[in-house]
Amino acid sequence: MAGGSGTRFWPLSRAKYPKQLIRLGGELSLIQQTVQRLADIIPAERVLVVTAANQADAIRQQLPQIPRQNILVEPIGRNTAPCIALAALYLKKSDPQAVMVVMPADHLIQDTDEFKQALLMAASLAETDDCLVTLGVKPQSPHTGYGYILLADEIAHSAGLKAYKVKTFTEKPELTEAEKYLADGALWNSGIFVWRSEVILSAFEQYLPDIYKSLLGIEPALGTPQQESSLAGVYPRLPSISIDYGIMEKYPHTVVVRGDLGWNDVGSWPSLREVFPADEAGNVTLGRHLGLDSKDIIIHSPNKPVATIGLENIIIVETEDVLLVCNAERAQEIKQLVNMLRDKGWGKYL
Amino acid sequence: MAGGSGTRFWPLSRAKYPKQLIRLGGELSLIQQTVQRLADIIPAERVLVVTAANQADAIRQQLPQIPRQNILVEPIGRNTAPCIALAALYLKKSDPQAVMVVMPADHLIQDTDEFKQALLMAASLAETDDCLVTLGVKPQSPHTGYGYILLADEIAHSAGLKAYKVKTFTEKPELTEAEKYLADGALWNSGIFVWRSEVILSAFEQYLPDIYKSLLGIEPALGTPQQESSLAGVYPRLPSISIDYGIMEKYPHTVVVRGDLGWNDVGSWPSLREVFPADEAGNVTLGRHLGLDSKDIIIHSPNKPVATIGLENIIIVETEDVLLVCNAERAQEIKQLVNMLRDKGWGKYL
Repeated sequence: MAGGSGTRFWPLSRAKYPKQLIRLGGELSLIQQTVQRLADIIPAERVLVVTAANQADAIRQQLPQIPRQNILVEPIGRNTAPCIALAALYLKKSDPQAVMVVMPADHLIQDTDEFKQALLMAASLAETDDCLVTLGVKPQSPHTGYGYILLADEIAHSAGLKAYKVKTFTEKPELTEAEKYLADGALWNSGIFVWRSEVILSAFEQYLPDIYKSLLGIEPALGTPQQESSLAGVYPRLPSISIDYGIMEKYPHTVVVRGDLGWNDVGSWPSLREVFPADEAGNVTLGRHLGLDSKDIIIHSPNKPVATIGLENIIIVETEDVLLVCNAERAQEIKQLVNMLRDKGWGKYL
Repeated sequence: MAGGSGTRFWPLSRAKYPKQLIRLGGELSLIQQTVQRLADIIPAERVLVVTAANQADAIRQQLPQIPRQNILVEPIGRNTAPCIALAALYLKKSDPQAVMVVMPADHLIQDTDEFKQALLMAASLAETDDCLVTLGVKPQSPHTGYGYILLADEIAHSAGLKAYKVKTFTEKPELTEAEKYLADGALWNSGIFVWRSEVILSAFEQYLPDIYKSLLGIEPALGTPQQESSLAGVYPRLPSISIDYGIMEKYPHTVVVRGDLGWNDVGSWPSLREVFPADEAGNVTLGRHLGLDSKDIIIHSPNKPVATIGLENIIIVETEDVLLVCNAERAQEIKQLVNMLRDKGWGKYL
């Protein structure tokens, strides 16, 4: 899933160059890392990318190993549920029994081995059972932006990994609820799912019948020259809904594989603190930094060294054409700032 | 006088490219502005520049209209007194009666007409009298970095300008003293002086006889191929002292011309607030700025727009090869930072 147009990494991410296409402290972009980390269990010819029209060229460029027809272009973003139904239908045409791994293109995973083991365990569960499997990780805080999974019985385990039946799946709870989940040993949903395509399509038929029927109607066009026009005809009328609210919260037979994946959805500049090491003053620097009495600074400036004096809790992002300096407490307002850009004649920096 | 190697405008100013050579919000550098603003009363062939060896090339490049022999290179900086004595001796060789205007190359003057009128009034006073004339400006605050001039009798006036005998001249007083001067209607010394070269040389002979004798000894070499080696022989032994402490405080017959020149010695990044207009949030921007809830920011970024969120009282300076973000309360620590550069392997940014 590579359709995001997130603005929270502006000015590094742009409308036509969103988070999955950017490099965060590595040689590879997040989507390149996502594909590469799976290369020995999911070869490139079996990777499907679902993306937006304005990103397709950049994705083809960054992922030349993926066959062109495997890059599915949504005419308009409709959240994760339609995206997943489309991919499931596409897969079902070539293999109705296909086990499907669904993941966002823009997450970081630091323990690749554990991650692959978790996917293989999930796949073996999904292969023989009509369950929906998700990967769960240990919560770091009662963050209200994630899905919380309460565990029922353990159903499998191997070397550090355990699989459980899911008791409840609750997307984006209130803070007090999230705190209670944390105390009850709930897991965060990583947004990485494993199931057979026919199983998820049955779930769509039952829980999101509008999406199911609309896309089933254009199934014959998939993989043909009519694909683009068929999608353009049906997509704008689809409801915009996430798989979490649409299916995962409701489906009676979901399973979670719990692993210590080093997973992070790197949702904003401050989240870099969770994935990159800080110096002794708490500064996280992708680039070079010389600080005089400066602490808890986040710097992304791969091309230009940054000197700071007497700063605290500031985000500094330097790109080729624009510079952002932001109070780290207010990183969520980058979204507002990006909205201002258009109004203020800064459209070229969107 | 263009010998300064100030670091307070780092990273815009550099060791080999100090403040007088930088552009602050204009097409011309400060030294180019200094020469240009006088062009119709002091033609280029009568401008002498005294500078340091490592800046001479850049100055020749920025001021191609000034004859090469008019650029005097000090082998080592010895503050303003030796610099002025050298220039006075050089001038005296061609014209013993010459009226000499002395000024720093790196000040801003916003009212050029008033400034030229003040210089002409000062010159006419100096031409016929053995006085040392300085230009005085109204103090903005009890700043302890300036010279304070208490006024005696008025001796001349014309259109807004008045000349007074100087009662006392006190360089860099303590704060309580400065406050008292302010209350007593004292003026700040602008550091711009007018006198006949023979008068200032007599003052050197009396008050700074070491400097006088040393330089008089090499007078015959000035303007000859031996100039450089003669200066190299004598300069390192000269005392490092300012004209203010060395002569102005002591000379019994000094005069001040008071004018409203729009003078500013732009001594640091925060001083840009005094010379450039701020937006309604108090932000001073040389470049482009889009601020979300940001106030009292100082930005120098002529090549790259800067976006800020939730910042207050921050200095942001972007250059081609390095970026500075600094708490404006602590701009004086830029000097320390520059000292750190060498230690930390950032020498190329000095």
